[in-house]
Amino acid sequence: MAKLLVLHGPNLNLLGSREPDVYGRATLAEIDADLSARAEAAGHALASFQSNAEHALVERVHASREEGIAFLLVNPAGFTHTSVALRDALAAVAIPFIEVHLSNPHAREPFRATSYFSDLAVGVVSGFGPLSYGLALAAAMQRLDRRDP
Amino acid sequence: MAKLLVLHGPNLNLLGSREPDVYGRATLAEIDADLSARAEAAGHALASFQSNAEHALVERVHASREEGIAFLLVNPAGFTHTSVALRDALAAVAIPFIEVHLSNPHAREPFRATSYFSDLAVGVVSGFGPLSYGLALAAAMQRLDRRDP
Amino acid sequence: MAKLLVLHGPNLNLLGSREPDVYGRATLAEIDADLSARAEAAGHALASFQSNAEHALVERVHASREEGIAFLLVNPAGFTHTSVALRDALAAVAIPFIEVHLSNPHAREPFRATSYFSDLAVGVVSGFGPLSYGLALAAAMQRLDRRDP
Amino acid sequence: MAKLLVLHGPNLNLLGSREPDVYGRATLAEIDADLSARAEAAGHALASFQSNAEHALVERVHASREEGIAFLLVNPAGFTHTSVALRDALAAVAIPFIEVHLSNPHAREPFRATSYFSDLAVGVVSGFGPLSYGLALAAAMQRLDRRDP
Amino acid sequence: MAKLLVLHGPNLNLLGSREPDVYGRATLAEIDADLSARAEAAGHALASFQSNAEHALVERVHASREEGIAFLLVNPAGFTHTSVALRDALAAVAIPFIEVHLSNPHAREPFRATSYFSDLAVGVVSGFGPLSYGLALAAAMQRLDRRDP
Amino acid sequence: MAKLLVLHGPNLNLLGSREPDVYGRATLAEIDADLSARAEAAGHALASFQSNAEHALVERVHASREEGIAFLLVNPAGFTHTSVALRDALAAVAIPFIEVHLSNPHAREPFRATSYFSDLAVGVVSGFGPLSYGLALAAAMQRLDRRDP
Amino acid sequence: MAKLLVLHGPNLNLLGSREPDVYGRATLAEIDADLSARAEAAGHALASFQSNAEHALVERVHASREEGIAFLLVNPAGFTHTSVALRDALAAVAIPFIEVHLSNPHAREPFRATSYFSDLAVGVVSGFGPLSYGLALAAAMQRLDRRDP
Amino acid sequence: MAKLLVLHGPNLNLLGSREPDVYGRATLAEIDADLSARAEAAGHALASFQSNAEHALVERVHASREEGIAFLLVNPAGFTHTSVALRDALAAVAIPFIEVHLSNPHAREPFRATSYFSDLAVGVVSGFGPLSYGLALAAAMQRLDRRDP
Amino acid sequence: MAKLLVLHGPNLNLLGSREPDVYGRATLAEIDADLSARAEAAGHALASFQSNAEHALVERVHASREEGIAFLLVNPAGFTHTSVALRDALAAVAIPFIEVHLSNPHAREPFRATSYFSDLAVGVVSGFGPLSYGLALAAAMQRLDRRDP
Amino acid sequence: MAKLLVLHGPNLNLLGSREPDVYGRATLAEIDADLSARAEAAGHALASFQSNAEHALVERVHASREEGIAFLLVNPAGFTHTSVALRDALAAVAIPFIEVHLSNPHAREPFRATSYFSDLAVGVVSGFGPLSYGLALAAAMQRLDRRDP
Amino acid sequence: MAKLLVLHGPNLNLLGSREPDVYGRATLAEIDADLSARAEAAGHALASFQSNAEHALVERVHASREEGIAFLLVNPAGFTHTSVALRDALAAVAIPFIEVHLSNPHAREPFRATSYFSDLAVGVVSGFGPLSYGLALAAAMQRLDRRDP
Amino acid sequence: MAKLLVLHGPNLNLLGSREPDVYGRATLAEIDADLSARAEAAGHALASFQSNAEHALVERVHASREEGIAFLLVNPAGFTHTSVALRDALAAVAIPFIEVHLSNPHAREPFRATSYFSDLAVGVVSGFGPLSYGLALAAAMQRLDRRDP
Repeated sequence: MAKLLVLHGPNLNLLGSREPDVYGRATLAEIDADLSARAEAAGHALASFQSNAEHALVERVHASREEGIAFLLVNPAGFTHTSVALRDALAAVAIPFIEVHLSNPHAREPFRATSYFSDLAVGVVSGFGPLSYGLALAAAMQRLDRRDP
Repeated sequence: MAKLLVLHGPNLNLLGSREPDVYGRATLAEIDADLSARAEAAGHALASFQSNAEHALVERVHASREEGIAFLLVNPAGFTHTSVALRDALAAVAIPFIEVHLSNPHAREPFRATSYFSDLAVGVVSGFGPLSYGLALAAAMQRLDRRDP
Repeated sequence: MAKLLVLHGPNLNLLGSREPDVYGRATLAEIDADLSARAEAAGHALASFQSNAEHALVERVHASREEGIAFLLVNPAGFTHTSVALRDALAAVAIPFIEVHLSNPHAREPFRATSYFSDLAVGVVSGFGPLSYGLALAAAMQRLDRRDP
Repeated sequence: MAKLLVLHGPNLNLLGSREPDVYGRATLAEIDADLSARAEAAGHALASFQSNAEHALVERVHASREEGIAFLLVNPAGFTHTSVALRDALAAVAIPFIEVHLSNPHAREPFRATSYFSDLAVGVVSGFGPLSYGLALAAAMQRLDRRDP
Repeated sequence: MAKLLVLHGPNLNLLGSREPDVYGRATLAEIDADLSARAEAAGHALASFQSNAEHALVERVHASREEGIAFLLVNPAGFTHTSVALRDALAAVAIPFIEVHLSNPHAREPFRATSYFSDLAVGVVSGFGPLSYGLALAAAMQRLDRRDP
Repeated sequence: MAKLLVLHGPNLNLLGSREPDVYGRATLAEIDADLSARAEAAGHALASFQSNAEHALVERVHASREEGIAFLLVNPAGFTHTSVALRDALAAVAIPFIEVHLSNPHAREPFRATSYFSDLAVGVVSGFGPLSYGLALAAAMQRLDRRDP
Repeated sequence: MAKLLVLHGPNLNLLGSREPDVYGRATLAEIDADLSARAEAAGHALASFQSNAEHALVERVHASREEGIAFLLVNPAGFTHTSVALRDALAAVAIPFIEVHLSNPHAREPFRATSYFSDLAVGVVSGFGPLSYGLALAAAMQRLDRRDP
Repeated sequence: MAKLLVLHGPNLNLLGSREPDVYGRATLAEIDADLSARAEAAGHALASFQSNAEHALVERVHASREEGIAFLLVNPAGFTHTSVALRDALAAVAIPFIEVHLSNPHAREPFRATSYFSDLAVGVVSGFGPLSYGLALAAAMQRLDRRDP
Repeated sequence: MAKLLVLHGPNLNLLGSREPDVYGRATLAEIDADLSARAEAAGHALASFQSNAEHALVERVHASREEGIAFLLVNPAGFTHTSVALRDALAAVAIPFIEVHLSNPHAREPFRATSYFSDLAVGVVSGFGPLSYGLALAAAMQRLDRRDP
Repeated sequence: MAKLLVLHGPNLNLLGSREPDVYGRATLAEIDADLSARAEAAGHALASFQSNAEHALVERVHASREEGIAFLLVNPAGFTHTSVALRDALAAVAIPFIEVHLSNPHAREPFRATSYFSDLAVGVVSGFGPLSYGLALAAAMQRLDRRDP
Repeated sequence: MAKLLVLHGPNLNLLGSREPDVYGRATLAEIDADLSARAEAAGHALASFQSNAEHALVERVHASREEGIAFLLVNPAGFTHTSVALRDALAAVAIPFIEVHLSNPHAREPFRATSYFSDLAVGVVSGFGPLSYGLALAAAMQRLDRRDP
Repeated sequence: MAKLLVLHGPNLNLLGSREPDVYGRATLAEIDADLSARAEAAGHALASFQSNAEHALVERVHASREEGIAFLLVNPAGFTHTSVALRDALAAVAIPFIEVHLSNPHAREPFRATSYFSDLAVGVVSGFGPLSYGLALAAAMQRLDRRDP
C-alpha cells in the first residue's frame, strides 16, 4: 500500500461552476472523491489539496516527505509558467510526480507553451478534462506496483 | 462500436530491442495486441500501423477517413518536430487524435520542446513508456462512449 | 445601481509615504474614499481591496462573482508581469475590468513592457498618479450606464 | 487659461462611418466639438487637427510651440508603430502629451504591442472608444490646473 | 514548343473532397486536365505529378532534366517549410520554377511564413485556389515565349 | 460590370526608365493602359493611381469606397514593410485586394521578407515583372465573375 | 550600532535536511544563530526571517523601514527569477541589500541566469554554501562601519 | 565642376532653435550657406533641400538624376530607421551618397542602431553636430576630384 | 576485420553530372568503388547506400546493427538540417559515425549552419569534395584499429 | 599550508588613480599586500599577478599547476565577457577558482550580464570594491581548511 | 597647442600592400606622416601607434593620460567587435575619441554591425579609406579649438 | 614542392599532459614532428607555430605571405569563437586554410557552435584528436598537388 497526494493549483476551486461546457460539471470535491475511491480499490490511499496560494502548495510538498507520500499528481494551473519556488520544492523532496492539465496548454496562448515542471516530471497528461487526473492516477499506480516486491 | 487506429512513427519498430532498460521489453507487436484486446473488451475495434516513412503515415491517415476510423492515437516520434505534411493530413481528415510519447520530450534535447501536433490534438500523454498508449486509449474510449446515444 | 470593486496589488499599501514627489501625498485610504464618494454620487457602490498576497487577490476576484460585482478596476502592480494565476481568475469570473497603473510602465525597466492583463482588459489607464484610478472609474461608470435600460 | 491641441492620425477621419458597431456612431467632428465644449467649460481652449499625412502632423506639432499650446492629446493611429519623425517632433517641442487610442492595441495584432510614443508620454489611455479622448482631457486639465499659481 | 511539369506536394490528392467550401470542388485530375489543355492550346506540353513522398518528388525533379522539361510549377504544400532535399533537387537541375499555393500561407499559422523555395523561385503565386496554378502557367508560358527565337 | 483600381506605391513612377534590364522597358502608363484594355474587354472598368506619398495612397483608398470600387490591385512597393497606415486604410474600406510585386521580395534583402499586407490580401503575386499585374487582374476578374448572379 | 535583517526565500527552511552533501549539514537556525553572534560581536544586531510566501517577505521588507533596519541580506531563492513584487518592495524602502545564493546559479538551469535583484543590489555573493551569508555579512558590516562618524 | 545636393530629413528645419546647447546655434540656412561657399571655393556647386514629408524627399531624389547631381549628402533624421521608400529612391537613381547625422545614433535609443541607409552609403559621418556635414562634404569632393580626368 | 557502411543522402545520386566544376567529375559509383578498395586494402569491408528517401536511410541504419556494421560514414545532405528521424535511428543503433559533407555548409545559406547530427557524431569532415569521404574513412579505420586486440 | 594566486585582468593596474570616488583610493599593490598578509596570518601563501595581456594571464594559469597553486582568485575584468582562451586555461588546469568583481556587472551595460567564467567558478563575489577580494579570500581559505586532514 | 594620438588596431600594418584596389596604395607610415603634418600646420602635435596586440593598445591608452594627450583617433579594426578591455581603457582615461574605419562595417558581414566603441565615442567616421582619418582629425581639431580660451 | 604552416591556438601547448584520456598522450612536439615527416615524405615542407597570444598568431599569419607559405592548417582553439583579428589576418593574406579541432565543438557548450573561421575556410575537420591534423594535412596536400602543372 502506498500514499498518493493530488495537488491542485490556483483557480481550480472554481471547477464545476466555471464554464461547465468546457470543463464539465464535476466539482473538485467530486473529482477528488472519485480518485480516492479508485486508489483505495487498488489498495492505496489518496489525499487531495487545493490552494490558490503558492506558499501553501510549497509547504504541502515539504510536508509530504514527512507523511511518506510515495507519488504526487500535480496540476500547477497558472503556476505552471511562473513558479520556480514550487518547482524547487518538488525537486527538493524528490518524490516522483506527474504533471496534469485539464485543457491542452498548446492550444491556448503562446505563453502557456513553457512549463517549469515538465522536465522534472515522470510524464505529462493534458487535455482530457477531469479524466486527465484519472489517467495520471492509473499511471502512478502502475509505477508504484512495479516497484513492489 | 467504433474503429480506432494507432499510428507509430519512425524507429518505433525497434521497440523491445532498443534500450530495454529505458523503454521496457515489450515489443510493438505485444503493445498493439494488448491495445487491441482492451479495445475489443470495450466493444470497439483497434488497428495499428507503424512506418518509418512519412508518406506511408500520411496516406494511412487519408485512408482512415474512408475506413470510418473514429479516433486516432498518434505517436509521431521523430516527426513530432519536423512533419508539417503529417500535421496537414490530420487536419484534413478532421478525425480527433491524441498525441502519445513513450518518453518525456521535455526532459531531452531542447529541439524536442516543440511539436507540430500538440495544438491540434485533443490531448497529450507522454513519459510513461508503453503505458502512455494505454492511457491514451482509455481517454479515447471515454470520449467515444460519451458521444454514444 | 451597480457594484464596483477596486483591486490594489503588492506594495500599494505604501502609497502616500513612498516617494511622495513621484506618487503624490495621497494615501491609499484617501484614494479609496474619494473613489467611493464619486461612485456614490453617481448612484453606484464601490469597495476596495489591497493585498501583497497573490492568492488573496485571486480569491477576492472569485468572491466578486458571488457578490454581484459588475466592474473591476485592477492595478496589478508587480503582478502585472508575473501572475498568470490572477489573469486566470479574472478570465474565469468574466467580469469586465480596466487595468490601472500609477506610473507609466513603458518609461521604466524593459521587463515592465509586458503585461498578462492588457489583452483581456476593456482598456488601460497609466501614468497619471492617483488620477489614473479616477479616469478608470469614469470610464467604468460610462460603460455601466450605457448598459442600463 | 491654457491652450490644448488634439491630434488625430491617419484614417480617423472615417470615424462614425467606419464599423459603427465597434467605434460608435460619433463622428470626429462631434468628438472634437464635445472636447472643445468641455475644455471651455473649464476655462481652457481646445483645437483639433486630423491628417493622413505624417508630415502634416509633424508640422502641426512644430507650429504648436509658436501658438503656445500647453498640452497635446495625440492619437497616432497607424503611425504609433512606425513614425520616428512624429516622435522626434514631439520630443523637439517638449510639450507634454498623452497617448490616446480608441481600441486596446494589446488585444489586436502583435505588431501593435510596440509604440514609439509610450515612453515619452505623460500617460496612456486606450480601449474606451471616444471616451478615451474625454479621459485624457480630464487628466490633461488636472495637470494644467496643478501648475497654476 | 516546350515541356512543362506541375508538381503537387503532400495531401493535394485530397483536393475536391477536402473542405470544398474553402478549396473549391475541382479535383486534382480536373485541375491537371485544364492546365494541360491550356498549355496545348498555346503549343506546349504539360504533365503533372502528385506525391505524398518527398523522395518521389525529388526523383521526379531529377528525371525532369533528362526529359527536357523547360519549366516547373511547384506546389510544395507541407514541404514548403521543411524540405531542404526538395530545394536542393530544384537547385541542382537548375530548371526555372514558380512556387504555387492554393491558400495564402501568410494568413495561416506563423510557421507557414517561411519557405525553403521562395528565394530560388522565379516568382510566387498564392491564395487564389485552383486559379493559382492557372496564373502560374500563364506566367511560365510568357517566359518561355519570350525566349523563343 | 465592376470597377477596379490599381495602386502603385513609391518609386514606381520611374518604371521603364529605371534599370530596364531588370524591370523591362514598359512604362507605368503603358502597363496601366494594357490593364485597362484587358479589363474593358472583359466588361469591367479599371483606373490606376501612383503616388510617392503615403497619405495620397491612403486617401485614394478611402475614396475608392465612395466610388464603388469592387477590387484593388496594390503594389505597396517600399511601403510594404513600413506602412501600418495604408494597411489600416485597406482594412477600413474592406474592399478585397491582391498584393502585387514586380520582383521577388524573398530573393532580396531580409527586411523585405515581412509584409504588412500579405495576411489581409486575398492573395499575392510576385516576381514576374509587369506580368505580375496581369496575373493579378486575371485573378481579380475571376473572383468578380464568380460573384455575379 | 546598526540593525541588520536576513531574508531567506522559499524552500530554505529545508536546509540541513535537504541534500546535505551539497548544502552542508547546518540548519537554517544554526546559520542564523551564527550570523547573529558574529553581528553582535561587532556591535550590531541581526534578525532573520524565512518564508515560503512572497507576500510575507514583501511585508517584512515594508516593516523593516519602520524598525530602522540599516542593511538587508537577501537570498530570494526561487523568487530570484520570478518576483517583481519583492523587487519593488526593496526598491520602495530603499534600504541597501546584498543578494546571497548558497549555490552558483550560473552552473544550473539556464532560467537561473537572470535575476530581478542583481541590478538593484550593492553586490552579489554566490556559490559558497552557508558561508555565502557570512561573507555578505562581513561586506555589510564594513559598509555600515564606513558610514559611522 | 560637379553638382552636389544636401538632403535634410524631418525636424531639421528646427535647427538652431531646438536645444542649442546640444546642437549649436547655427540654423539650417547658415549651415547650407557655409557648405555652399566651401563647395564653390573648390569649383563645385551645392544645393540644399529640407522637408518633413517623406514623399518630397523621395521626389527630390528622383529629380536629382535629371539635374545631373553627382553626389548626395543625406541626413535622413527620423526616416533613418523607417523609410524603405527613401532608400529605394536612392538605390534607383544610383547616385553615390554619404549618410550624415548630427548626433551619434549609437549613443541614443536602441532603435536608432539600425539604419536603412548605411549599407548603401559610401560612408557614414555622425556625432559632430553641424561639422558632420562639413566632413562629409570634404569626403565627397575628394571622391569627385579623384574621378576627374 | 571490420564492416563499414557509407550512407549518402538525397540528391547525391546526381554526383559527377551536377556542377562538375564545383563537385568534381567523379560519380558516386566511382567514389564508392574507391572507398571500398581502400577499406579492403586495410583488411576491412565497406558497403555503400544512397537514397533520396528518409525512411530508406532510417531502415538501412536499423539493418546495420544486425549486419554487424562497426562504423558508419554519413553524408545526410539536405537531411542534415531537417531529419530528427535519421538522428534517432543513429542514436538507437549506437554505432559510431562520422558526419561528412562535400561542400562547406558554413559558407552557404544560414540555415545550413545547424545540424541534427554533429553533436552525436565522432567528428565532422566538410569542404573537400569527394576527398571528404576518404578522410573520414581514414579516421574511421584508425579508430577501428585502435580497438583491436 | 596552501599556495593561493590572485589574477587581475586588464585595466586593474589603474586602481587607486582611476575614479577613486567609485573604486576607493587603494592601489592594486596595497590590495595585494593586504591579501597576502591575511593569507600568511592564516598559514597560507598568496601571490598576485596583473596583466593587460590575455596570453600572459593564460600562461600564468598554466604555470600555476606546476607551482602547486591550490586555489585561484580571478578578476577577469574586461575579459569576463570575451575570453574563451582564459576560460579554457582554467578548465585545463582544473584548479578551483572564485570569480571576483569590484563593481556589480548587473548594474552596468547589458553586455556585462554574461560571463565565460561563472559556470566554472566555485562562486562569485561582486560589487564590494576591494573588499570583494577579501571576501573571496576568506571563502577560499575556508574551502582549503575544510580539505585539510 | 594640443597633443593628439592616433591608434591603429590589428592588421593595419599591412596597409598599402593589402588589396590596394580597395584600400588605396598609401602605407600606414604615409598616412601617419600626412596626419602629423596637417596637425602641425594647425599648431598641434600628433603621434601614432599601431599594434596587433590588444594589451599594447590598452597600455598605450593608459600612457596617454600621463602624456597629456587631449584627443584620440581610434581605428579598433578587428577589436571593434570583441574588445571590452580596450573599451574599458578608453572609458578609464576619459579622453575624448573618434572611432575611425577605412571601410564601411555596415556593408560587410553581419557581425560587424556591433561595436564596443560607438556609444562612448564623440563620433564615428567610416567608409572613406585613408581619408576617414583626415576627416576625423579635422573634427578633432575643431573640437579642440572650440575649447580654447 | 610547397611550404605549409600549422598554427596552434591558446592552451594547445598543454597537449599530452592535459586530460590524456580525452586528447591522447601525444605532445604537440610529437604531433608537429609527425606532420612534418609526412609532409616531407610527400615532397613538401611543413613548419609549426603555437602561441597563447592572439597578436603572435596574427603576425605569424602576416609573415607567412612573405615566406611563401602555400597552405595553412589552423586550430584556433579558444580564439575560434572570439577573434575577428585572426580572421581578418587570414582574409588579408588570402592563403587557403583548413580549420582543425581536436574535439567536436558541437558536442560541447552552446557558445562553441559558432566560428569566425568556418565560412572562410576551405573545409573543417573536427573530432578525431591528433588525427584531425593528419587528415587536414592529407586534404591540403591533395589540393596542392592538384594545382601543380
